[in-house]
Amino acid sequence: MKLIKNYAGRLVPDKINGMTQIPYKGIGKHKPKGFKAKPIIRSCADYPSDGNKIVANLKEALIKSGIKDGMTISTHHHFRDGDALTNQLFDTIKELGIKNIRWFPSASFPVHSHLLQYLEDGTIHHIEGSMNGALGRYTSNGKMKGIGVLRSHGGRYQAVQDGEVHIDIAVIAAPTADEFGNATGDRGKTACGLLGFALVDSEYADRVIVATDNLVPFPCVPWQIQGNNVDFVVKVDNLGDPSKIVSGTTEVTKSPDRLLIAEYIAQFFEDAGLLKDGFSFQAGAGGINLAFAIYLKEMMKNKGIKARFIRGGSTKYLVEMLEEGLTDYILDGQTFDLEGVRSMRENSGHVNTSPFTSYNYHGKGNFAQLVDVAVLGATEVDLNFNANVVTHSDGYLLHGIGGWQNALFSKVTILAIPSFRDRIPVIVDKVTTLVGPSDLIDVIITERGIAINPKRKDLIQATKNSNLPIRKIKDIYDEVIEITGKPEKPNFDLNKPVAVVKWVDGTVLDTIFKIRE
Amino acid sequence: MKLIKNYAGRLVPDKINGMTQIPYKGIGKHKPKGFKAKPIIRSCADYPSDGNKIVANLKEALIKSGIKDGMTISTHHHFRDGDALTNQLFDTIKELGIKNIRWFPSASFPVHSHLLQYLEDGTIHHIEGSMNGALGRYTSNGKMKGIGVLRSHGGRYQAVQDGEVHIDIAVIAAPTADEFGNATGDRGKTACGLLGFALVDSEYADRVIVATDNLVPFPCVPWQIQGNNVDFVVKVDNLGDPSKIVSGTTEVTKSPDRLLIAEYIAQFFEDAGLLKDGFSFQAGAGGINLAFAIYLKEMMKNKGIKARFIRGGSTKYLVEMLEEGLTDYILDGQTFDLEGVRSMRENSGHVNTSPFTSYNYHGKGNFAQLVDVAVLGATEVDLNFNANVVTHSDGYLLHGIGGWQNALFSKVTILAIPSFRDRIPVIVDKVTTLVGPSDLIDVIITERGIAINPKRKDLIQATKNSNLPIRKIKDIYDEVIEITGKPEKPNFDLNKPVAVVKWVDGTVLDTIFKIRE
Repeated sequence: MKLIKNYAGRLVPDKINGMTQIPYKGIGKHKPKGFKAKPIIRSCADYPSDGNKIVANLKEALIKSGIKDGMTISTHHHFRDGDALTNQLFDTIKELGIKNIRWFPSASFPVHSHLLQYLEDGTIHHIEGSMNGALGRYTSNGKMKGIGVLRSHGGRYQAVQDGEVHIDIAVIAAPTADEFGNATGDRGKTACGLLGFALVDSEYADRVIVATDNLVPFPCVPWQIQGNNVDFVVKVDNLGDPSKIVSGTTEVTKSPDRLLIAEYIAQFFEDAGLLKDGFSFQAGAGGINLAFAIYLKEMMKNKGIKARFIRGGSTKYLVEMLEEGLTDYILDGQTFDLEGVRSMRENSGHVNTSPFTSYNYHGKGNFAQLVDVAVLGATEVDLNFNANVVTHSDGYLLHGIGGWQNALFSKVTILAIPSFRDRIPVIVDKVTTLVGPSDLIDVIITERGIAINPKRKDLIQATKNSNLPIRKIKDIYDEVIEITGKPEKPNFDLNKPVAVVKWVDGTVLDTIFKIRE
Repeated sequence: MKLIKNYAGRLVPDKINGMTQIPYKGIGKHKPKGFKAKPIIRSCADYPSDGNKIVANLKEALIKSGIKDGMTISTHHHFRDGDALTNQLFDTIKELGIKNIRWFPSASFPVHSHLLQYLEDGTIHHIEGSMNGALGRYTSNGKMKGIGVLRSHGGRYQAVQDGEVHIDIAVIAAPTADEFGNATGDRGKTACGLLGFALVDSEYADRVIVATDNLVPFPCVPWQIQGNNVDFVVKVDNLGDPSKIVSGTTEVTKSPDRLLIAEYIAQFFEDAGLLKDGFSFQAGAGGINLAFAIYLKEMMKNKGIKARFIRGGSTKYLVEMLEEGLTDYILDGQTFDLEGVRSMRENSGHVNTSPFTSYNYHGKGNFAQLVDVAVLGATEVDLNFNANVVTHSDGYLLHGIGGWQNALFSKVTILAIPSFRDRIPVIVDKVTTLVGPSDLIDVIITERGIAINPKRKDLIQATKNSNLPIRKIKDIYDEVIEITGKPEKPNFDLNKPVAVVKWVDGTVLDTIFKIRE
């Protein structure tokens, strides 16, 4: 393994876990060659003629799936911090004495710190997916056996579709399912909304196990996961803790600084001419975004403006807009609260999307590019408008990418960030880890002012008469450094990459190195 | 090319249009090896960044798709006899001077006799799909350049999925679509219900063209066809004649003989214990089936019985059952009338299926096997309970297979047939063409009596105290021959196969030969 400087000037490994990599070449510059992965052809003759695929338990399903050392096992994160199944799954894998699993989750949460013991004892070799919280710290400390791979939601679909990651066994937690394996997330005692993150797993994995705590007679409608892709169905007592299934970040901010940011965003929409009939936007969970949605809603009502669609992560605030007729559709990638789950079940305008429809860069287009404005967050933004969402300025890996990289492809991307957090600047001279290239980041909105990427002359022109505090990013940076001082750079061991950040096209955008003790 | 005797004792070619074939081996005996077809990896970078894929017209879309001689071009049949697009498509291909196209429709209708000129002049080399009416007669007369291939709806999905048929360009007629290529059949002035037959085309074809006469702003919801699989969108004035989009066979029979058959079927359900809470059945269009549905509905109401699901082809009769609460779901494969279209749009219990979910034999099971009772038709049934749906006793190819072979996998398959038509017996000594093997055909219901396949001892036992006229098939046959006389066998030229019938697993079940003048 040697390090190569990529198009963005970042050092990236030429090989990861033994596989040759392509360094990042710039946006839209890497043209994939060849063909999609090709799943094994199956025959109805090898499946129960009555369609009943139930087996006794997860252990039996794993054995029937032919589990063995070194396999890739995937899970999804729709249960978020309430997920009970993934921990049970790895308890079972440990019990079976299986080693060196590549765990391929769509994301991980604090609840999965239970798996640290399996990283320690060799049950899990490494993680490809988000390494959040304790798992991230473990990785940053250089303790994981393999190199972690961080991908966006769209990048995860792309990697499986393109054959970069072959899933041996997919385990899908389904709040409602039938014995044929049709499954949905929008109903049942542990309803989590949709199951879109597990779609690619169901399509491409050799073996697919659906675990459910709510078995219904065939047909389970809707079939977000199609039983025709499922090998085994397992009944479990409880898939998770419903109170933690929804995101913890669905409280509107009370911080005056953050409320100011939210107000600035809404005002920017108006001043830049983004607020017009038939427009669309994406705003996820998180205190600022929720407050922004409330401000925006008032503006839309006052002006009699209706959106064509809103991209979710849905919350009760977006559901209200749908139910009050302020948007035709919510195109939802994951539900962040129970009102989102209810709405998805009840409103035909609350539409289920998947990383295939929304985010896969190796498709014939995707929905992300059709969004007029995306309002996103970041852990760091630098003076060149590059941004970071996975590490903090102390160098520790603490977050996954989620759909963030994919959402950058909207027509206008706004990063809504406090200018500093806990006396650590968020606007920095150079991002610790490059996750979002500056070409796709258009506007930074902080409580100390708004900076527009100089490349977006159209937005600069459109807002030239605005009363908003539009400033140069360097001015905001200088003001922040004045307050916080310039923090020390992390002490990385550049001989020891611990994880990489993939771009949406599968190339390697940046490397996360071990932090020296 | 030489002829081989297959497991069913039928002579089948070892090669078809230059491709080596596998002769039929018995039900569930052919185990596929290898991997599914692998579509080309695409990149968003090569598609319009604003998602607008509209091109001026069909001709431009075909040119941009790289159309050339010898390609395979697919269409779907949701517009049935009202289809205007397919004829326009081939007019355009002719205009471009392209030759030797393999036309791969999901079915053909009398309206497509317009294409006879293109079979004559070499624009179309041969058809793989149903060759109905005039196209069938043309084929039977030995005039088509290549050998026709008849597949069931599920077999068509299987053939594309397994890479047996590679589609170069798919043309999808969409009653509603957006400029990104998302498309639906359930709304618009030419609404036809669903677009499930085009699903596999959209997934596997190199290039996918959506033609619509009702363009809506993104997003077109529902997206039965996903724009992420679509290359070009074309606006056309009119996709078809709405009055002919729905099947012509949605009138309840007035014939006393056929009404008697319908009554027998309903009574058989009751006497054989098939009519019970939570049961399921499939009954398509056609006069007998519609009358049967009316009888069955009355019985269900009288007994307070509710079905879990009904497999469509939906009609207003099935919609009434759904809307009156006599079934939880209609699982619909194609809508046969406008009430079906309306219901699909309005009722969440009226669910869109596809040949993938319902019928693909090379999946991990399919829905057809979960249906308790399927009531189907046939052109011929023989004394061994083999059946035919594609040729008549005069040897002429006149019908496609549709979903008929796939539906045979239900738990009980009933063929509802008049014992003779136009003084030609329907019960025969040996079917002209084998389309449905006897192992899957359980009950024959005619106006002269009911015959149960001797292999179904359970059904014989269950109905032993029934008042229904349950007889040996030979007795019914003898009675019919007494009336009609024994018709002459067709004079086939066994040196000249003109088409083959595939089984659901891609093996060759039977051959249709040229008829000597």
